[in-house]
Amino acid sequence: MAVFTRVTEPELISWLDDYSLGQLLELQGIASGIENTNYFVTTSNGRFVLTLFEKLAASELPFYLNLMSHLARHGIPCPSPVANRHNQFLSELNGKSACIVSRLSGKSLMNPEVIHCAAIGGMLGRLHNAAQNFAETMPNAHDAMWRARAAPQVTPFLSPPDVALLESEVAFHEKHTLAALPQGVIHADLFRDNVLFEGARIGGLIDFYFACNDSLLYDVAITVNDWCMGVDSILDEARTQALLQAYHAVRPMQKKEYIAWPIALRAAALRFWLSRLYDMYLPRENELIHAHNPDQFKYILQRHIAANSNVIWL
Amino acid sequence: MAVFTRVTEPELISWLDDYSLGQLLELQGIASGIENTNYFVTTSNGRFVLTLFEKLAASELPFYLNLMSHLARHGIPCPSPVANRHNQFLSELNGKSACIVSRLSGKSLMNPEVIHCAAIGGMLGRLHNAAQNFAETMPNAHDAMWRARAAPQVTPFLSPPDVALLESEVAFHEKHTLAALPQGVIHADLFRDNVLFEGARIGGLIDFYFACNDSLLYDVAITVNDWCMGVDSILDEARTQALLQAYHAVRPMQKKEYIAWPIALRAAALRFWLSRLYDMYLPRENELIHAHNPDQFKYILQRHIAANSNVIWL
Repeated sequence: MAVFTRVTEPELISWLDDYSLGQLLELQGIASGIENTNYFVTTSNGRFVLTLFEKLAASELPFYLNLMSHLARHGIPCPSPVANRHNQFLSELNGKSACIVSRLSGKSLMNPEVIHCAAIGGMLGRLHNAAQNFAETMPNAHDAMWRARAAPQVTPFLSPPDVALLESEVAFHEKHTLAALPQGVIHADLFRDNVLFEGARIGGLIDFYFACNDSLLYDVAITVNDWCMGVDSILDEARTQALLQAYHAVRPMQKKEYIAWPIALRAAALRFWLSRLYDMYLPRENELIHAHNPDQFKYILQRHIAANSNVIWL
Repeated sequence: MAVFTRVTEPELISWLDDYSLGQLLELQGIASGIENTNYFVTTSNGRFVLTLFEKLAASELPFYLNLMSHLARHGIPCPSPVANRHNQFLSELNGKSACIVSRLSGKSLMNPEVIHCAAIGGMLGRLHNAAQNFAETMPNAHDAMWRARAAPQVTPFLSPPDVALLESEVAFHEKHTLAALPQGVIHADLFRDNVLFEGARIGGLIDFYFACNDSLLYDVAITVNDWCMGVDSILDEARTQALLQAYHAVRPMQKKEYIAWPIALRAAALRFWLSRLYDMYLPRENELIHAHNPDQFKYILQRHIAANSNVIWL
């Protein structure tokens, strides 16, 4: 259960006094999510999501909320933060920083087909384009420094072959970075559970709390590694091509991005293998029950390495 | 037909290149409306309304668009203007200033009941509250000066009793103004056709192109004159009370506003009687076919005067 901080109806009604959202009609805790407390909130004005931030630093929150507001303003279907009467997105509720955002319609899709991957590719391109004139920046918390720090912390728990794989892959990405590729604000976590579909149309992109500045191609690789993955941890060719072609049609990829594509796929797989290892062996409080299996991304990483072992790197 | 300026699919696709809204899926002209050209536009990102401004001065448009954006940001269900890649709401399409805004769901309600009037009252209060920290201002184009200028232009077309009524009423409001009442941004045209309902819930308020700064009570009176009107041009008591009580619960009315209420109802009725007379007898090009019958508001005005003839004015 992801309601870490309970909010009662009277508490919420009092908090909503500072907003122009009308009467509270329904309040319902959301079970998913491991970083924040979330509630569905229905008022006279419509359907919203209330979030109490449990772990994110208060200083980082304006970036995420202003980013969502910026993207919504540009017509990207993402949660739009609601301002209170002091014109602020953030205020305090039960001792936590809290915000309320518009609730989007649609459902997550667990078995996406080619048409959905094409929709995702196009939308990711539009997200990258729309974020180009967003003025604020946020470094990627899961960067090379994080890898260098986290890897030695998990190796004591791993088998010798896994230690060897992890260490050689961390070393590989030290040498082969994506820093020379086009940069921008990326979602950085556009997995299937963070996209709501209405039929074949995307109703919403959600959960922007890993968004940061990094290589755009890296974001594409994170997305492809989830949406286009087939059996045996090998990318499904039709879905991968559909996603990349739709992305390219919106934000044309440069030649150096094509060349770096295998590296981006490996970097994206390493990011989630390592963070899942970390969450499994060094869990924060309340988090263990939600830990994903790290092996999935180890296999994906191994397959990417095998598939591209004959490529000559830059 | 309210499509004064035709927009073809290739023209719109080219214009949309500057936005992050994805592929054009559908373009459909909207027949209603007398001030602008409107199209329903569906893209990969969702449902929108395209507006080409035919009559409004370009200098006034930022006020309306920024107001809608401000209200949407505060959770009021109103059209949210979409910014292009230059972060602008306005740009040019086929020689006209144009914008694209989110499309709201719901349908206009022609026979509202008590529950709907209560919903409208609460929403109007929230709109007034949410607009309190909107920084831009717009004078009311239909103010006392407009009345003084427009009335002599239509009297040549009226019967002697109507001339007498119009002239005495214009003189009355010269003496009894609402200027001392709480002021703010008002919608100024919240008639039934400018509200979309989804069941008993308001899905959206639309058409903010008469919005301006004026007495909040005057906006309530405009709204009541439409939503709560019964047969024989007499206000339906149950609907009127429901609207006023719901409004008061959100934005408590002051004693001086209660005292001025009969004046506000008359001022609101006069505004639409006079503008409809003007549109009927001095129509602008393309406008005649849409002219409303002015008599409806003459009867409403007469009933308001009769109902309150025993009130001693301030």
